[in-house]
Amino acid sequence: MKKIAVIGGGTGNFAVLKGLKSYDVDISAIVSMADDGGSTGILRDELGVLPPGDVRQCLVALSDSSRLMRSLMNYRFENGGLEGHSFGNLLLSALEKVTGSFEKAVEEVAKILFIKGKVIPVTTHQVRLKMILNSRKVLEGEKDIYLSQEIDLGYKSIYLEPYPKANPHAINEIMNADMVVIGPGGLHTSLIPNLLVEGISEALRETQAKKTFVTNLMNRKGQTTGFKVSDYLKELVRYIGEDIFDYIVVNGQKPDPELIQVYAEEGDLVENDLKDERIRMASLLGELKDGPKKDLIKRNLIRHDPKKLSQELMKIVNYL
Amino acid sequence: MKKIAVIGGGTGNFAVLKGLKSYDVDISAIVSMADDGGSTGILRDELGVLPPGDVRQCLVALSDSSRLMRSLMNYRFENGGLEGHSFGNLLLSALEKVTGSFEKAVEEVAKILFIKGKVIPVTTHQVRLKMILNSRKVLEGEKDIYLSQEIDLGYKSIYLEPYPKANPHAINEIMNADMVVIGPGGLHTSLIPNLLVEGISEALRETQAKKTFVTNLMNRKGQTTGFKVSDYLKELVRYIGEDIFDYIVVNGQKPDPELIQVYAEEGDLVENDLKDERIRMASLLGELKDGPKKDLIKRNLIRHDPKKLSQELMKIVNYL
Repeated sequence: MKKIAVIGGGTGNFAVLKGLKSYDVDISAIVSMADDGGSTGILRDELGVLPPGDVRQCLVALSDSSRLMRSLMNYRFENGGLEGHSFGNLLLSALEKVTGSFEKAVEEVAKILFIKGKVIPVTTHQVRLKMILNSRKVLEGEKDIYLSQEIDLGYKSIYLEPYPKANPHAINEIMNADMVVIGPGGLHTSLIPNLLVEGISEALRETQAKKTFVTNLMNRKGQTTGFKVSDYLKELVRYIGEDIFDYIVVNGQKPDPELIQVYAEEGDLVENDLKDERIRMASLLGELKDGPKKDLIKRNLIRHDPKKLSQELMKIVNYL
Repeated sequence: MKKIAVIGGGTGNFAVLKGLKSYDVDISAIVSMADDGGSTGILRDELGVLPPGDVRQCLVALSDSSRLMRSLMNYRFENGGLEGHSFGNLLLSALEKVTGSFEKAVEEVAKILFIKGKVIPVTTHQVRLKMILNSRKVLEGEKDIYLSQEIDLGYKSIYLEPYPKANPHAINEIMNADMVVIGPGGLHTSLIPNLLVEGISEALRETQAKKTFVTNLMNRKGQTTGFKVSDYLKELVRYIGEDIFDYIVVNGQKPDPELIQVYAEEGDLVENDLKDERIRMASLLGELKDGPKKDLIKRNLIRHDPKKLSQELMKIVNYL
């Protein structure tokens, strides 16, 4: 069975994992540990646990359990001291406390949810993502970076503090994979934080796996405004140390102009400026379900379709 | 297979259920819904859910899952907004929110924990336990009643507000049981609240099941001070409407005098004053594990041994 390692974090990973789950492949999701916003941030601060949020999303994406169990994992309490916490985050954090190990907690939830494949924290050290802007302003934490509107004015550096060693299981999965998929996902908040972990970029340079970059559909305003495919690639290559990519999957389907307009507050379309034989262009957009468009969260309006995206990835895998 | 319905709530039920679990019997635990203290009270107030605490304890008692899962269910968060909440309570409350039904939530957790038998809320209505003391003081809620030191000065009435109908499943279990076990447990806070639910006392009077009362080991100071077995029986009979009991299980083993002294702040020994052929006297005390006695919670010092208690109950069942 072909082995695919998917590197990312946050909602970006979701479509890739959910799509690939239906195929006869061995999936491992390597997940950024930089999240410190929302429920995850509160749990980190109050309980001293590792960030559960991104891991939870990957577990749900790979889960073969009932719809009820998946709803439960994503259920958010709405009142009182529990307000905003997703149940799955509490499960991971309680298990981390009971077992004394975040990785063990992830394994236990993986069993409860009958997941296909594995979910692996990129590091098991407590880290904070920091960024120093050209203005010398320091953004402390992934949440601050996520919310910043000044990143596209340039930044001096982005780093994890303290500088963490990679989880050996993450290195293993990269080294033994037939294909490594990076993206889609927030460039500074989900993708780069994986590359900042000691050993990950080296493993990416050394592995025999084919490397596929799945480009984002939309830029994030104030962060990657006006970025084209080559700009994303340049940023990744900067942290990996060389251009390792064998394939670049790009969406070639135009979103509904009305949607682009609604989305404009959040960001603009990522355009492809590469003429490169590595480019795999395909129609990758998800259909909008019925219902008024204004009720959707804007950044969910234009998104990858798990089926279409995984079909494209499997074309590559089947060719290997 | 013989069917046993165990009626109670709180930690009292735990020893009975844990003990009976090892036998080839069909167990159903019918659980009081009056709890409103601690984590359970906060969840009721903030989320409007039914009280999960007693149900959780019964689920864990009947669970055949790993020690890890049982530890997880009882794990209490120690800091921040989650402080004091047991994970199992959060699981039940989140599932109640997701499924829209507390009973469905209990069933789902029962599956996750591989429980033997069933756990059944005595009612699925939101109720508060109230008590009017002889002093005309009104105790609002089970927690206030549990903490009161004036109950043995006499009370005028105890009632659930609003007066709830029984869960039909609870009635069913009582009617179809070969044996019904009541107790041990807090007289006013765990046992009587079940009898105050419309239909329960009637079912207890009508069922063909043999009825067994397991008497408490210790009185609770300020509540049942100086109570003897006949006093407990009288109180139960008052709410059931007649003396239905076929067997009365009494501990005949004297606790270590040092323990009785340590326990004195909490309450005195329950003495048996009945000479009745229904009395089944046996050595029922649990052994203390190693370690300094002062580190234990006082009310846990003198307790039923699940094995010894269930052996005694099974003697009755096997005779049926």
